[in-house]
Amino acid sequence: MTTRPTEKTALTPPTHTTPPARFSHGVRKGNILQVAGQVGFLPSVPGEPPTPAGPTLREQTLQTFANVASILREGGASWDDAVMIRVYLTDTAHFPEFNALYDAYFAEQDLTGPPAARTTVYVGLPPGLLVEIDALAVLG
Amino acid sequence: MTTRPTEKTALTPPTHTTPPARFSHGVRKGNILQVAGQVGFLPSVPGEPPTPAGPTLREQTLQTFANVASILREGGASWDDAVMIRVYLTDTAHFPEFNALYDAYFAEQDLTGPPAARTTVYVGLPPGLLVEIDALAVLG
Amino acid sequence: MTTRPTEKTALTPPTHTTPPARFSHGVRKGNILQVAGQVGFLPSVPGEPPTPAGPTLREQTLQTFANVASILREGGASWDDAVMIRVYLTDTAHFPEFNALYDAYFAEQDLTGPPAARTTVYVGLPPGLLVEIDALAVLG
Repeated sequence: MTTRPTEKTALTPPTHTTPPARFSHGVRKGNILQVAGQVGFLPSVPGEPPTPAGPTLREQTLQTFANVASILREGGASWDDAVMIRVYLTDTAHFPEFNALYDAYFAEQDLTGPPAARTTVYVGLPPGLLVEIDALAVLG
Repeated sequence: MTTRPTEKTALTPPTHTTPPARFSHGVRKGNILQVAGQVGFLPSVPGEPPTPAGPTLREQTLQTFANVASILREGGASWDDAVMIRVYLTDTAHFPEFNALYDAYFAEQDLTGPPAARTTVYVGLPPGLLVEIDALAVLG
Repeated sequence: MTTRPTEKTALTPPTHTTPPARFSHGVRKGNILQVAGQVGFLPSVPGEPPTPAGPTLREQTLQTFANVASILREGGASWDDAVMIRVYLTDTAHFPEFNALYDAYFAEQDLTGPPAARTTVYVGLPPGLLVEIDALAVLG
């Protein structure tokens, strides 16, 4: 037991675009790490607006995974620490392709433990965006 | 303080259908337990595709509760440990009936403490599915 | 290590309307505090149904922030403890105005650390409601 409050740290990978409002791309407080909703934006270019990696589900999904992963890393975590991954798609017809991309991506991550839990629902997203992902991690 | 990393455990009740992708039905890491989005699938039958308990909100909701509960149990938890229940419905007209089912179900659970917090939103789900539920629990 | 189970406490500000089902407006268990989905309902008036602060996004958003904040306070927390804020809007066209309200609100909160992470998605809500917000906090 300590009286020092648990520090709250913003996780802001240098390649990330500035958030469109007063929120953090990721936050770590104690052993809890929360990644904000990420989309398929390419690494930011100063003076240019955020740009998706491409129009396809594949391009956006892979970039979104990379964006989530860089925030986990910034907080000293990895996919092995993720306990929950929330997936927002815009079209139920994308489910099979998304799952194939998901499986292929995580097969390459060399997880040392079981994969995270996941919830997938179908929502509206800003025009041009097909996928958004956030994640909750518990550090060891 | 210990240097041993916190173990991450997959929670996979034997009656559950295989997840359609590389994710876990539930995960426990330290004192945090996350249940993945559950729908009203009946206990799995080898060689057959996942089948909802029925077409009605009532049938699917009761089966979904059972599926969430079995994952909590698998992780050594109960509804008393749940701090958040996320409910995804497909039709705002289902809210009153869903709440009646929710109240009746939890009245029977003999909680020793207060019920979990809850958020309910209306989203798209795969054809035939009317409800999806996930849960976050903190173990004592 | 203690054998006493972590207490789970319901957070129920006196001004809040009764939940429409068996859930808590907020729950604290150990150092985790979860705020249930809040909408722009005015403080409850005995014998009257819940009433939104007004029909506009601005009115509902400001009241929703107040409702979330009062639950955080009830649990001994503040916005500084929030690690994740989940925002549910009903119309992608509301994003710029919502972000402006969000920024103005949090500029006034005098946070001592970084702002929480955030995910914003577009869903269906009951008629008349334009915004719903929930939050996860980790206490220090």
